[in-house]
Amino acid sequence: MLTIDEILSRGVSEVIVEANVRRKLNAGKPLRLKLGIDPTRSDIHIGHAVALRKMRQFQELGHTVVLIVGDWTAQIGDPTGRDESRPRLTVEETKSNAKYYMDQVFKVIDPAKTEVRWQSEWFGQFDLEKAFGLIGRFTVNQMLAHETFRKRYEAGQQLTVLELMYPMLQAYDSIAIKPDIEFGGTDQKFNILAGRQLMEQMGMEPQDVILVPLIIGTDGRKMSKSFNNSVDILMSPNDKYGKIMSMGDDVLPVYYEVWSDAPLAEVKAMPEAIKTGSVNPRDLKMQLARDIIRQLDGEAAAAEAEAEFIRVFQQRDLPTDMPEVALSEATNIVDLLVSTKLAASKGEARRLIDGGGVRLAGEKIGSYDSLIQPIGEQILQVGRRKFVKLLGN
Amino acid sequence: MLTIDEILSRGVSEVIVEANVRRKLNAGKPLRLKLGIDPTRSDIHIGHAVALRKMRQFQELGHTVVLIVGDWTAQIGDPTGRDESRPRLTVEETKSNAKYYMDQVFKVIDPAKTEVRWQSEWFGQFDLEKAFGLIGRFTVNQMLAHETFRKRYEAGQQLTVLELMYPMLQAYDSIAIKPDIEFGGTDQKFNILAGRQLMEQMGMEPQDVILVPLIIGTDGRKMSKSFNNSVDILMSPNDKYGKIMSMGDDVLPVYYEVWSDAPLAEVKAMPEAIKTGSVNPRDLKMQLARDIIRQLDGEAAAAEAEAEFIRVFQQRDLPTDMPEVALSEATNIVDLLVSTKLAASKGEARRLIDGGGVRLAGEKIGSYDSLIQPIGEQILQVGRRKFVKLLGN
Repeated sequence: MLTIDEILSRGVSEVIVEANVRRKLNAGKPLRLKLGIDPTRSDIHIGHAVALRKMRQFQELGHTVVLIVGDWTAQIGDPTGRDESRPRLTVEETKSNAKYYMDQVFKVIDPAKTEVRWQSEWFGQFDLEKAFGLIGRFTVNQMLAHETFRKRYEAGQQLTVLELMYPMLQAYDSIAIKPDIEFGGTDQKFNILAGRQLMEQMGMEPQDVILVPLIIGTDGRKMSKSFNNSVDILMSPNDKYGKIMSMGDDVLPVYYEVWSDAPLAEVKAMPEAIKTGSVNPRDLKMQLARDIIRQLDGEAAAAEAEAEFIRVFQQRDLPTDMPEVALSEATNIVDLLVSTKLAASKGEARRLIDGGGVRLAGEKIGSYDSLIQPIGEQILQVGRRKFVKLLGN
Repeated sequence: MLTIDEILSRGVSEVIVEANVRRKLNAGKPLRLKLGIDPTRSDIHIGHAVALRKMRQFQELGHTVVLIVGDWTAQIGDPTGRDESRPRLTVEETKSNAKYYMDQVFKVIDPAKTEVRWQSEWFGQFDLEKAFGLIGRFTVNQMLAHETFRKRYEAGQQLTVLELMYPMLQAYDSIAIKPDIEFGGTDQKFNILAGRQLMEQMGMEPQDVILVPLIIGTDGRKMSKSFNNSVDILMSPNDKYGKIMSMGDDVLPVYYEVWSDAPLAEVKAMPEAIKTGSVNPRDLKMQLARDIIRQLDGEAAAAEAEAEFIRVFQQRDLPTDMPEVALSEATNIVDLLVSTKLAASKGEARRLIDGGGVRLAGEKIGSYDSLIQPIGEQILQVGRRKFVKLLGN
């Protein structure tokens, strides 16, 4: 089991107030750990889940996670508040989204040590007087000190007064569920501190705060669906494995710190070890992939994904670097072999197909007429040593 | 009866949109005229009542005043929103304050053509979802364009988000009661235009706006209780008369424009006429005093106040200007006569008292031992021609 020192430092950006958290952990009583979640239909990736993994470590010490489904804060999403035509989520949609979210969350945290609460339990009964009592505790100056708000205000962009209520609602959740610690990414600092302030103002012991880093994507850029550089919780183990193997060497230590329990000294030494050639980054990635998949999908799935990877890729000496070619429309295989220079001519291309040496994603291509669709990343292979990675739309 | 041109120009600062107001007035249908009032216990003065007098003119054309008792906006008064110890008004206090307000209001407007509505009729049922719907329609930029808010924000002063809701609530009142025109002082422009905007956003015909000027006090400074320069609606007719007679000559035309029906050309000519001596400002003030008291307390009260004034002051040739002396503590009459130079010596002071020539507020002083208390304004008089105005605390 991890030590408290490790739990509070590794994969953690900031602890507010650390002395309090240590005192609470040493008191031996089960703590309530708050995490707010958004019931829009979203795929959680392992970046989102860094906080969940941290909470899992606390659960293993016997503490309870309180997940708050933000069915009221979710209504504050619309940046203008004026778009009458944007349909509000129905209760059914919200419930279905929340279930989809839980299916992912419970791959990381332990459902048996988790309490799920809905904001509507308290905000559904809120009247205007209660709202006044809440809104009156926050100043405009304080809200516009928040970078997200200030930037838009100063740029003269639409920022509705309603949007200022997002942090207030999240803060009030802490009044309702009385957490000991609230967790979140570093981008949540403002909102979580608002909760601390409100609890103090209302005469409660203020929650402490554990902020985890926002990790970069597998390609070293900001992790984002649009960059296709995230590892989603609900991806198949094989897809997860492939995605982790495709990660840049620079990114490795970041993921090792937050998603593995490998000694931190070893993690810190990785860049140098890779540089001097004393370790093979491919081996480090395989070890990481297996570890992450084990945590998310179990030991058997991790072993299977590893075996599959070895079968399909490694035994064929698939290079970790290969030329990439954008494929924007369905293309005939013969034309494609020529344009990617895997064949010198159409004639050679046909001969290679006849000889059974052309594979797409590991599958032999038997016909000159095959149309290759521009879908995702596909490896087009000729013989044992010539590869091109096709990048679809 | 006044013409529409006069109603829309005299004692009016701004009409938005004038063409619409004229169209509405010409349509021959009874209009709904909105005025918001604050149920704190406050003495209305004739400055506050300029809008009421304007509305009275509309009532005389057959239109209906809708008074909105701001029992919800009143809760937004506290500038910090954090002062837990400040007691909230009870329902009884609010009702009693509102009754006190009505007693004053109905001295100007006609209760038979007035509908009284309470914000609690609609805000009492407001849930958080409805509040979101309202708050989401106003932007932070728009609110901070309001000078009152912007100044405090830029000075880094406490401005709670709740305070931004004041204009929104006032705006929503217009959704609830559907007025044709909202009235207010020029300082209400922002709030009233917020109502116009909200009605438009919610698919209603937007209210028009009539703004009346904020008039100065009788001494030419800002009208304010602390300057003791206002004429309060509930003052006795005699006090009103005296206060109006004490007004500076420069102020006369301002009051004539908003509180009399004297031809505007005559009003505009007053400063020149006073300067050349072709009119006596005292006569103009008496005429104004009688007119204002007639409107507020009736013809009989006005005539009586005038008669009393003539009896007590004018027949004694009370000068309109007399030396003023501050009186900060109870003072012996003999000492006071000497210090105010009404007597050359204590001996002369005693002789004047013996001779029955010393009066305080018109009453003879018979004893050398009289202590004069420093209360309000009192006229100390010796014989027929020597006066001093004592200014107490």
